[in-house]
Amino acid sequence: MTKNIHKILFFLFLFQPLLAQKKNHEQQINEIFNLALTQGKSYDWLDYLSNQIGGRLSGSLNAERAVKWGEEALQSLDLDRVYLEDVMVPKWVRGNFEYASIITGPGMSINVPVCSLGGSIATPAAGLRAQVVEVKDFEELEALGEENIKGKFVFYNRAMPANLINTFDAYSKTVDQRSSGAAKAARLGAVGVIVRSMNLRLDDFPHTGNMRYGDLPNKMRIPAAAISTNGAQLLSSMLSLNKELYFYLKQDCKNFPDVPSHNVIGEIRGSEFPDEIIVVGGHLDSWDLGDGAHDDGAGIVQSMEVLHLFKKMNYQPKRTIRVVLYMNEENGLRGGTTYAKNAKQKGENHLFALESDSGGFTPRGFSFEARPEQFKKIESWKPYFESYLVDRFALGGSGADIGPLRNGSTVLSGLLPDSQRYFDFHHAANDTFDAINKRELELGAAAMTSLIYLVDQMGL
Amino acid sequence: MTKNIHKILFFLFLFQPLLAQKKNHEQQINEIFNLALTQGKSYDWLDYLSNQIGGRLSGSLNAERAVKWGEEALQSLDLDRVYLEDVMVPKWVRGNFEYASIITGPGMSINVPVCSLGGSIATPAAGLRAQVVEVKDFEELEALGEENIKGKFVFYNRAMPANLINTFDAYSKTVDQRSSGAAKAARLGAVGVIVRSMNLRLDDFPHTGNMRYGDLPNKMRIPAAAISTNGAQLLSSMLSLNKELYFYLKQDCKNFPDVPSHNVIGEIRGSEFPDEIIVVGGHLDSWDLGDGAHDDGAGIVQSMEVLHLFKKMNYQPKRTIRVVLYMNEENGLRGGTTYAKNAKQKGENHLFALESDSGGFTPRGFSFEARPEQFKKIESWKPYFESYLVDRFALGGSGADIGPLRNGSTVLSGLLPDSQRYFDFHHAANDTFDAINKRELELGAAAMTSLIYLVDQMGL
Repeated sequence: MTKNIHKILFFLFLFQPLLAQKKNHEQQINEIFNLALTQGKSYDWLDYLSNQIGGRLSGSLNAERAVKWGEEALQSLDLDRVYLEDVMVPKWVRGNFEYASIITGPGMSINVPVCSLGGSIATPAAGLRAQVVEVKDFEELEALGEENIKGKFVFYNRAMPANLINTFDAYSKTVDQRSSGAAKAARLGAVGVIVRSMNLRLDDFPHTGNMRYGDLPNKMRIPAAAISTNGAQLLSSMLSLNKELYFYLKQDCKNFPDVPSHNVIGEIRGSEFPDEIIVVGGHLDSWDLGDGAHDDGAGIVQSMEVLHLFKKMNYQPKRTIRVVLYMNEENGLRGGTTYAKNAKQKGENHLFALESDSGGFTPRGFSFEARPEQFKKIESWKPYFESYLVDRFALGGSGADIGPLRNGSTVLSGLLPDSQRYFDFHHAANDTFDAINKRELELGAAAMTSLIYLVDQMGL
Repeated sequence: MTKNIHKILFFLFLFQPLLAQKKNHEQQINEIFNLALTQGKSYDWLDYLSNQIGGRLSGSLNAERAVKWGEEALQSLDLDRVYLEDVMVPKWVRGNFEYASIITGPGMSINVPVCSLGGSIATPAAGLRAQVVEVKDFEELEALGEENIKGKFVFYNRAMPANLINTFDAYSKTVDQRSSGAAKAARLGAVGVIVRSMNLRLDDFPHTGNMRYGDLPNKMRIPAAAISTNGAQLLSSMLSLNKELYFYLKQDCKNFPDVPSHNVIGEIRGSEFPDEIIVVGGHLDSWDLGDGAHDDGAGIVQSMEVLHLFKKMNYQPKRTIRVVLYMNEENGLRGGTTYAKNAKQKGENHLFALESDSGGFTPRGFSFEARPEQFKKIESWKPYFESYLVDRFALGGSGADIGPLRNGSTVLSGLLPDSQRYFDFHHAANDTFDAINKRELELGAAAMTSLIYLVDQMGL
């Protein structure tokens, strides 16, 4: 018995420094969560960004207002450095109207909620009136061929599959309709495309998003619009009764030459390894229909909160912690590519980059792009996240803005919030501040801060 | 090499039946989730229960409408048996008005949102006007003593602590103000109590809930009302400037003698062990301010969905699966106690009881009241729930309605949804159908059905 006690005491002695360190990390993370939930700034920041600035599409004056706000907010945190990085961004404007109706007979029509897809051209000034061919996918489109498509609207109506647990998987199985549906249909002589909104819920909000014509010659390009899920159900149901009905679409969106904009960057310089950079960020631009509260106002304020909480705790990081508010994720990714290009040119060493761009919902874990030995080290930190219910660590895609930093050694990571509600709001007019729950937002910020704290303490 | 292959083949042969069974369970659970998310009835049921029936406080005519609806909905499922169980329930009615204001000077007053607490008596017909003493807890109250309390309102203003991750923990740390605050204050001569709503969010909804006078003599009883969190902040801030201000409260709620009501019960009889009963349920009654969509319409329709999905799959359970829509959880628990008493009298053998009464949010796992060897068996099923992200299994409290079944051998369990938003809606006028996300509700129902499927297949 005595012998065993000696053994135990010996091991306690041996592991004491390790245990003390573990306890210290636990305490720091506990303080991070406490502060985020009681003295955090993320919710108030997001209130301002959503309600006082609002939608901030790249190239718009509101995007520049957001840049100015971001710069001033970071300056208020007493960081070691706050600066803007020049980025040329595409400029597409929605114009003054977008309007559509289903024409069921002479003088008989029903309005349906539509919005222009980002990057689309306008209809002729008088609008477009044509019959409709409904398809579920490109295979069906190709099978129908030019003889059935020419002169008509193509109506892409493949719904996001409801039975997938992760709604981002359902999105990736349907978004091709939106991104390349117009280019495919144009080659078969279609006059325009109507795309079912990427939304799992049946409601009246059309959801915009980017589309590309690719190498389609200018004169072949056709207008593309999204229709709300309820509108898509209505149109499909009417087509099943009358395949000869007409659809009318009028929109005056327009593409302009690129204009200058900025990434907004702030950093706390590392005390021991200032040349090892840890990036945390989201994208400052948003679509123009709502206020971009979830996409990606949430990610912006959570990223800023990481540095705010470190300051609040008087935590002096060993490595350089840099927040990047990326411009132009939605329709160009110019902020992300420019940042990575400049970083490479300057020979900067990025240890880790974390993005939040999946909505401000309850965080459930993180995804990682990492080498096996890196991921093994990160996985050993899971116990620190258990009591906060943020301990799902998985290999997988991280974030669009940090993607250009991918080089095989920098570890990339994405916050994984609960995904069930995200596409109810994504790119639509209801992505507003009232769709944000304060605690869910703050828990995400706390989880991000905790992960970055551990990377800073332990390296990778 | 060849030897190793033989070894592997031998083990494969040995474990094939087990592996096949595991695969079969995986497929069944996959089908459960698929059906719940694509052909479930829970969301439409909840739409009807919330929007066509609405608030259904025990003893009200709406509660009886809910009983009738529940009975008819269960009858439509072609179960082996649907019946009502008689329950006597308390009857408390809110009356025609509840009104309060802060009187800051002669002729100067500000309205604040209040609601009567369930079980409270009315104020005198002309209302109550008195000065206010703000306290955080009973210790502070007792320290102030009769000399400072007599003739005044006691204002309980201890906020739910924001730094706890599980909001139910924050609730249990503050709900004593609501449940026994009036009785404690009355003994010190207070004329009434105003209680800060159990809500983590700052908003304008007063949250009702049950209160008890205990053994306080009738003539000593005083009225109790909840004030919205914004109202509480306002009152506290005004009191800090002027301790002499007056508060005015007028309410005409009333207690009546008990009235008859019912639990609604339906069952599929087990094919192998019909005497082993598995119960799934929630509570059919709700508070009267909102529509009881989360509390506990969600639990009701999820419980009904379990039997609907089994029918849809043509699954014939080995054991008897019984759904119980309990009456009167909110202000008496008479449904739960009556059910357990009758079950005991009939000598029924309850193997397992599962309750959903924590809101229709994304499910994250289950709590269990079980003996160690029972919990060990249940824990071995966790892998079945991993890909649905519902694999947090923990020992802990289950549900109020099934609590009376506790006997040391019946395993009790509660669905654990994400808790962050629950108290935004709990017992308030905004607990309505629009606060429900279809997928989150359905995922809960699917998780419950899967757990009950496994208990039915494997026993406990």
